[in-house]
Amino acid sequence: MEVMYMVRSGRYTRLNVYLLILSVLQLNLHTVEGVWPLPQAFTSSTERYPLNPQAFYFGYGRQSAAQQGCSVLDSAFRRYFSLIFPDYTDGRLHFSQYKPFTVEVSIDHDDCEGYPNEDSSERYNLSVSAGQASLKAETVWGALRGLETFSQLVYQNDFGSYFINKTEIEDFPRFQFRGILLDTSRHYLPVQAILKTLDAMAYSKFNVFHWHIVDDPSFPYQSSSFPDLSSKGAFHPMTHIYTQSDVRRVISHARLWGIRVLPEFDSPGHTTSWGKGQPGLLTPCYNGGTPSGTFGPVNPALPSTYQFMARLFKEVSSVFPDSYIHLGGDEVDFSCWKSNPDVRAFMQKMGFGSDFTKLEAFYMENIVNITSALNKTSIVWQDVFDYHERIPKDTVLHIWKGIPAKYQEELSRITKAGMRVLLAAPWYINHISYGQDWRNYYTVQPQNFSGTEEQKKLVIGGEVCMWGEYVDATNLSPRLWPRASAAAERLWSDEKQTSNVDKAFPRLQDFRCKLLRRGIQAEPLYVGHCKHEYQGV
Amino acid sequence: MEVMYMVRSGRYTRLNVYLLILSVLQLNLHTVEGVWPLPQAFTSSTERYPLNPQAFYFGYGRQSAAQQGCSVLDSAFRRYFSLIFPDYTDGRLHFSQYKPFTVEVSIDHDDCEGYPNEDSSERYNLSVSAGQASLKAETVWGALRGLETFSQLVYQNDFGSYFINKTEIEDFPRFQFRGILLDTSRHYLPVQAILKTLDAMAYSKFNVFHWHIVDDPSFPYQSSSFPDLSSKGAFHPMTHIYTQSDVRRVISHARLWGIRVLPEFDSPGHTTSWGKGQPGLLTPCYNGGTPSGTFGPVNPALPSTYQFMARLFKEVSSVFPDSYIHLGGDEVDFSCWKSNPDVRAFMQKMGFGSDFTKLEAFYMENIVNITSALNKTSIVWQDVFDYHERIPKDTVLHIWKGIPAKYQEELSRITKAGMRVLLAAPWYINHISYGQDWRNYYTVQPQNFSGTEEQKKLVIGGEVCMWGEYVDATNLSPRLWPRASAAAERLWSDEKQTSNVDKAFPRLQDFRCKLLRRGIQAEPLYVGHCKHEYQGV
Repeated sequence: MEVMYMVRSGRYTRLNVYLLILSVLQLNLHTVEGVWPLPQAFTSSTERYPLNPQAFYFGYGRQSAAQQGCSVLDSAFRRYFSLIFPDYTDGRLHFSQYKPFTVEVSIDHDDCEGYPNEDSSERYNLSVSAGQASLKAETVWGALRGLETFSQLVYQNDFGSYFINKTEIEDFPRFQFRGILLDTSRHYLPVQAILKTLDAMAYSKFNVFHWHIVDDPSFPYQSSSFPDLSSKGAFHPMTHIYTQSDVRRVISHARLWGIRVLPEFDSPGHTTSWGKGQPGLLTPCYNGGTPSGTFGPVNPALPSTYQFMARLFKEVSSVFPDSYIHLGGDEVDFSCWKSNPDVRAFMQKMGFGSDFTKLEAFYMENIVNITSALNKTSIVWQDVFDYHERIPKDTVLHIWKGIPAKYQEELSRITKAGMRVLLAAPWYINHISYGQDWRNYYTVQPQNFSGTEEQKKLVIGGEVCMWGEYVDATNLSPRLWPRASAAAERLWSDEKQTSNVDKAFPRLQDFRCKLLRRGIQAEPLYVGHCKHEYQGV
Repeated sequence: MEVMYMVRSGRYTRLNVYLLILSVLQLNLHTVEGVWPLPQAFTSSTERYPLNPQAFYFGYGRQSAAQQGCSVLDSAFRRYFSLIFPDYTDGRLHFSQYKPFTVEVSIDHDDCEGYPNEDSSERYNLSVSAGQASLKAETVWGALRGLETFSQLVYQNDFGSYFINKTEIEDFPRFQFRGILLDTSRHYLPVQAILKTLDAMAYSKFNVFHWHIVDDPSFPYQSSSFPDLSSKGAFHPMTHIYTQSDVRRVISHARLWGIRVLPEFDSPGHTTSWGKGQPGLLTPCYNGGTPSGTFGPVNPALPSTYQFMARLFKEVSSVFPDSYIHLGGDEVDFSCWKSNPDVRAFMQKMGFGSDFTKLEAFYMENIVNITSALNKTSIVWQDVFDYHERIPKDTVLHIWKGIPAKYQEELSRITKAGMRVLLAAPWYINHISYGQDWRNYYTVQPQNFSGTEEQKKLVIGGEVCMWGEYVDATNLSPRLWPRASAAAERLWSDEKQTSNVDKAFPRLQDFRCKLLRRGIQAEPLYVGHCKHEYQGV
């Protein structure tokens, strides 16, 4: 069956698409339909080529700006060889034919030793024909996305032989920011769990790891400037911390997958654990004129607070190479500030009257200015906008409130003010319910709000949030995958080509089986089976 | 703090209990409070004895009916040594002191080579004093429960040394039947996943594995009488089946933990997969006078059906040693039967008129009689009672309908008829929701229905059901543990001693950390940490 697909993105012409008839019981998605998230524009055919792991090569194109020695691509070639030929590394299959197949990668700019950033192009073109594939990209980050696509195009027949179909793909992400938040404060996640999540993120083409590294319950980040923060604020000072070496390992691993690491040090609320290692930082709460012994948010009335924050963020800015930093600013409880006579006196002095939103605004402006001076772009939770704070125009507002559907109003309001937004509200994936809730994540329309075309462009992307109240290394993977992958396709692919959630279902089932094959503990979407079930019990 | 606990079970005197002050952040449950499920009667003290793995011995009492060579206990001693001293097997700890400690086990009856059954006593007495522990039980199955309790009493200090406190325990289960259902038809579970579940079941003192082995989607049981059932009805005839050897392995592993294996071959509904390998078994559905090509429940109008079932159940009865067999009988859709002219003719001949419940009753009576003749006690889902079928008085009715709270009426009705019941309805643990839903499982009161004391005694126990629509080996463990453990305490312990769910919370958190330490992927209950986090990422 041959069907005309309209590719409505302005820059691409119409393409023919072969649709395979999908068997829901035994999926055999051997064309681009089997790539998740769906590429922007593609042709594929039933013409197939055998791949032989003993005669399969990755190489650099002659004109490529990146050549052998490019750390990102050299290591990607090694990883993808194992991902493409899972049986080969087991030494179980032997091939007698030796028809060579070469994947030639060409890059416009040599950014092999850099980090992906907000402006990095992830565009790539992939052409698969007899005996070779050609992968072209502006950057190594785009080449990584193309290698992922290539790896998903390869399939095995019932005898274990590998094949790929003739294919042409032109692909690029719909949104620049496609993130996953992990919360390492409510539960500590071993570094290995983070690294494995980064691997799986790359399989779904996520490109930002938002590391909500500290919060009320624990402070696992081992600061070189303030070591007491973790030695007194972590669940355990030795076993439940991230050393500088751990952090470097996460950043380095993420880089090789083309993933940015965006650290969040949320303040002035959500800071209970900070107070243990930094006396005087938090506001002493009062009860009837005397200190109650409990502490509230960071004390915004003391100069020492800003001196501490300046030093901490100077360290954080140098440890994390990304140009963005997340400053939090959500859910500040004013009751403790209200109870404290020194804070009230400060309010009077500053002319804030009894409007504590002005005090919070004052605090956040100071923090944003600290990080601006460090050449970082700030992301803050939407609360900061809601309080009408004066923050730099390039600050990104992170929308987390308003399910169902009320987040659209916030999208309108913030973009109308000319500010950029990042959408998280519909993707609080730690919330679970019985059944196929991935459909809710898939059918989100991030630009479906009232506003101009200019406003729509201010939506920089979306983020899947895995808050940690009920999640640690025991259940992180099955809760995240493949549910997060539903959001991944929404953030990467053309909305019109992926508007039918029922059509997505067998494709996502197939992709979930691919994740299992790669050792990712991705839970089932519904009744059925994968050729290779999860064996890591 | 010393508190008087009333132990209201008639056969035990009042005992003193030392309550440790529990720290929610860093749990240190070093007394019987740290045993899950809570023993029936106990004293414990703060007097503690060091345990040295190099001088720790299990042995048989001189008067014990079981002695060395007892397969169940010999292997339990080996297993529990590793569970009690997890560091020792790593070779990391070395002790210079050699104070010996002996656990002496005495059994009244030598049932070392048998299987646990519905009448098996699980009662045990455990006395821990300086240099020794004495464990007495009527059966090896009771000794296994006592060894589990002993293992949970051992703890490590911050330097890795092992200790146990002076303790006296008299313990026995509140209910005889404490089961977990796994569904291996909607998803195939690798044998390893089943074995690991059996391990974890024993840690919570569950004693019945209800193996819902086949259903509509697939027939993984490889029958020696009817091999086509799996070769045509399984998801895959080689990789997604349970061979006779697999089944024996599961039964044997379960036996060593004192767990019964109760197989379910559900009919006449839930049998779509049976039809593939057994043509003529299912009812052909009609559409306007002609066969539609689809099939309904088992065809109750044909003698060949009963011949097939007699042969299948003869095999099943010999493969599975337990005296119980589960025959299903739930959710029969009458529409296909109604459409079929041969079935309608049979109805007329039998004088059933148009009452299809009579046809289902006729079918189930036949099946129950087949298994009765094989000396098996039948368990059937409550539907069979609801249709007023004539079934033997010793048949157990399995309650699965009626959440919330409507199952109490069914408990009343069935027990009023003098039939025994097994309660599953409030423990459909495959259903998930956000937050601490274990509290719902914990606060079930299985005997809180209107009826006489005699009726209450007809509740033989309860069962946690993990239906497989959305569950396979990727998410089975974190969904099951520790949520199922909440039900385990309800089914084992005295209800009055365990009526406060808030008091249970830190104990269950502590037990969950013990499960992690044993390699069980048990998910967190709420914010916090375990000394040893899950490392199997």
